[in-house]
Amino acid sequence: MAVRKRSSRDIRSESRLDVLHALLAQGGATRNQLARGTGLSLATVATVVSELLAEGLVAETGSSTSGVGRPTTTLAIRGERGILAGVDVAETYVSTHVFDAALTELACTDVPLDERVESADHVVEGLVRSLDEALEAAGRARSELLGVGVALPGLVQGRAGTMSVVVPAWHWRGVGVLDLLRRRLDVPIVVENPLKAIATAELWLGEGRRVASMVTVNLGTGVGVGIVLDGTVLRGATNSAGEWGHSLLVHEGRACRCGRRGCVEAYVGAPGIQQTLREIAPDHPLTGTQLQRDFIGALGAALAAPDPDPAVVRTLERTATYLGAAIADLVAIINPERVMLTGWTAWALGDRLLPGTHAEVRAQAPRGTTADLTVGISTVRGNSAAIGMATLALERFLGDAGLLTTRSPLAL
Amino acid sequence: MAVRKRSSRDIRSESRLDVLHALLAQGGATRNQLARGTGLSLATVATVVSELLAEGLVAETGSSTSGVGRPTTTLAIRGERGILAGVDVAETYVSTHVFDAALTELACTDVPLDERVESADHVVEGLVRSLDEALEAAGRARSELLGVGVALPGLVQGRAGTMSVVVPAWHWRGVGVLDLLRRRLDVPIVVENPLKAIATAELWLGEGRRVASMVTVNLGTGVGVGIVLDGTVLRGATNSAGEWGHSLLVHEGRACRCGRRGCVEAYVGAPGIQQTLREIAPDHPLTGTQLQRDFIGALGAALAAPDPDPAVVRTLERTATYLGAAIADLVAIINPERVMLTGWTAWALGDRLLPGTHAEVRAQAPRGTTADLTVGISTVRGNSAAIGMATLALERFLGDAGLLTTRSPLAL
Ligand SMILES: [Zn+2]
Ligand SMILES: [Zn+2]
Repeated sequence: MAVRKRSSRDIRSESRLDVLHALLAQGGATRNQLARGTGLSLATVATVVSELLAEGLVAETGSSTSGVGRPTTTLAIRGERGILAGVDVAETYVSTHVFDAALTELACTDVPLDERVESADHVVEGLVRSLDEALEAAGRARSELLGVGVALPGLVQGRAGTMSVVVPAWHWRGVGVLDLLRRRLDVPIVVENPLKAIATAELWLGEGRRVASMVTVNLGTGVGVGIVLDGTVLRGATNSAGEWGHSLLVHEGRACRCGRRGCVEAYVGAPGIQQTLREIAPDHPLTGTQLQRDFIGALGAALAAPDPDPAVVRTLERTATYLGAAIADLVAIINPERVMLTGWTAWALGDRLLPGTHAEVRAQAPRGTTADLTVGISTVRGNSAAIGMATLALERFLGDAGLLTTRSPLAL
Repeated sequence: MAVRKRSSRDIRSESRLDVLHALLAQGGATRNQLARGTGLSLATVATVVSELLAEGLVAETGSSTSGVGRPTTTLAIRGERGILAGVDVAETYVSTHVFDAALTELACTDVPLDERVESADHVVEGLVRSLDEALEAAGRARSELLGVGVALPGLVQGRAGTMSVVVPAWHWRGVGVLDLLRRRLDVPIVVENPLKAIATAELWLGEGRRVASMVTVNLGTGVGVGIVLDGTVLRGATNSAGEWGHSLLVHEGRACRCGRRGCVEAYVGAPGIQQTLREIAPDHPLTGTQLQRDFIGALGAALAAPDPDPAVVRTLERTATYLGAAIADLVAIINPERVMLTGWTAWALGDRLLPGTHAEVRAQAPRGTTADLTVGISTVRGNSAAIGMATLALERFLGDAGLLTTRSPLAL
């Protein structure tokens, strides 16, 4: 792949994205407010708004009179323009979230997947069922969909036309899962891996467009990052950037499910945290908790007790040390302005993990990289992979309408 | 810092850079050849060439007749437009290289620095003396300088107006070294850290503009990387991106001179390689070699012997394993198309290190990231930090002439 050449079309596309992001963030705004919020000229804002009005994605919702001037029109995203679905496919479930065009969630459903069945057909069946159930719960029809975004748990690789999906747990390499999906759903589909979907959600709905560089750190069973540079998610040569979970914390350390030894994930993924507890207190009752979310929830509950179990406290401290050291590596290499923790471990333990993690990042990262660095918990709650996929589906829809230049090579 | 907005001026600037890079790479070319080489339209090439002709940086050097068409004019960079100096300031020496405007080296000098003297004054003195000696060796005058680029060994941080230089060995934090420099030299000066200078050299003269993503790995006493994405060196929030040398290889492993434990540098920096030999064969004669370049040179010579010393072979193997594992982490996080090894350890040991390193990268990096990945030894030889600084000085000169938009916040 050669250097991507930008065109003046890309610049117009970025202005449209800026205006959309500002409208989403502010709920509603006047042209003047949009110009102030985006840093664009009023003339550019006026042009962009008229394009979005013509596309039916933005509406004039009223007028406000401020002071003595003439009334100015308030604009907002027109949720009723259509609906979007964001689908989070994991190894054991499919979670589908339906949104209106203003990214307000209308309904969601979870359909369990039998993880023993590894065929792509089986997953596609579950996905279609989950989508139909979510549409029914929202009282909407497939025909209203502007697009569907699907997060697949693995490496979604390659460029348009030569894409492949590698899901380690499913041995899917080379299987035409995308063809299967396209045949079943007669709507535009985009696919991505969850790390990039989560980073996209943070970019649209969180902090991403206010800072020049940000890393989203997803903490769950697996762990990984999304790297956002100048408003764009870093994809990498084969769309595999962000696999920090499988970078080293300890050379020749704990075995990781990827086959490598000593990966970050083997220490700060939920099973890794359980392993840390096992090393501290081999007979602790929580070492037997089967489901990982239950284990993390129980750990959070144990920490909230008035006189918390020392083994649990020690586990949290060691986890914060591991996590801080691993984030310090990201800070050394990427030097971002902001690090946002996300994912269900972050929701459950984040407030307790954060002080120790932040202290370790400050202690371990190179001098001068942490003075202005913020480490926080993402404010995008819910299923951020699904939310991110819905925003990618919206981007694809706007791309098809000629309003955005496609950065993602991943549309079907 | 907010998201950097691009303008149509940036796009014109990139076209000019593309044409300059193509002219440097090809030596001389016709407008048609430039259009083919850069992917720009012939009209854009013609416009850019006329701007560069007007600035005196490009000249028409002759005409070639190919086939039956009318003769076409050959263009080349006009070396005589002026001279550039690239200065590599290390802890124990200042190396200054003088180039013509076509980046052909005219002369160089090395001035030793007494590393016991830590004052900024002392370093600035050494720098000015080195520059004057190099100019004299080239038979040129300070007045001919279009610019001077200085690589400083440490973190060069901040934005225009609030810059600081942190050189750990010199305790320079907060000292106005830049003011000192500017007072002594009445020419435009840019400063950067060596990692970004080396990446810039690879971008201008090596592989950088042919691939969408590249990491340059510098191996010397210290180690670190330059990350090049879409033709731009990643700087990070405080210009500190690339400190991979101080990311973890072994959590709580060997002490590193940065104060952290287990850094990559403590294993693959020259003193780290010597430590590996010491662990394998504590009494080996090479463990006593004082100067690091001498040690690496002696290691290379010992490996070239007909029946090489097993301890030395084992040291190389372990170094390749460490280096491969640490590069695999970069590949996991950044997913680049190309990794280029550079620096004096790479020149001395690279051909012997490469097979083991590449095998370890393939074994350790996430699936799907290594199929198209090239790991190679940089073809930019000589002092690539000095070469990179000269190119940054040229960029600065072109920026002042209105031909390039400045990406670097580091000009004085
Ligand atoms: Zn792993
Ligand atoms: Zn270190």
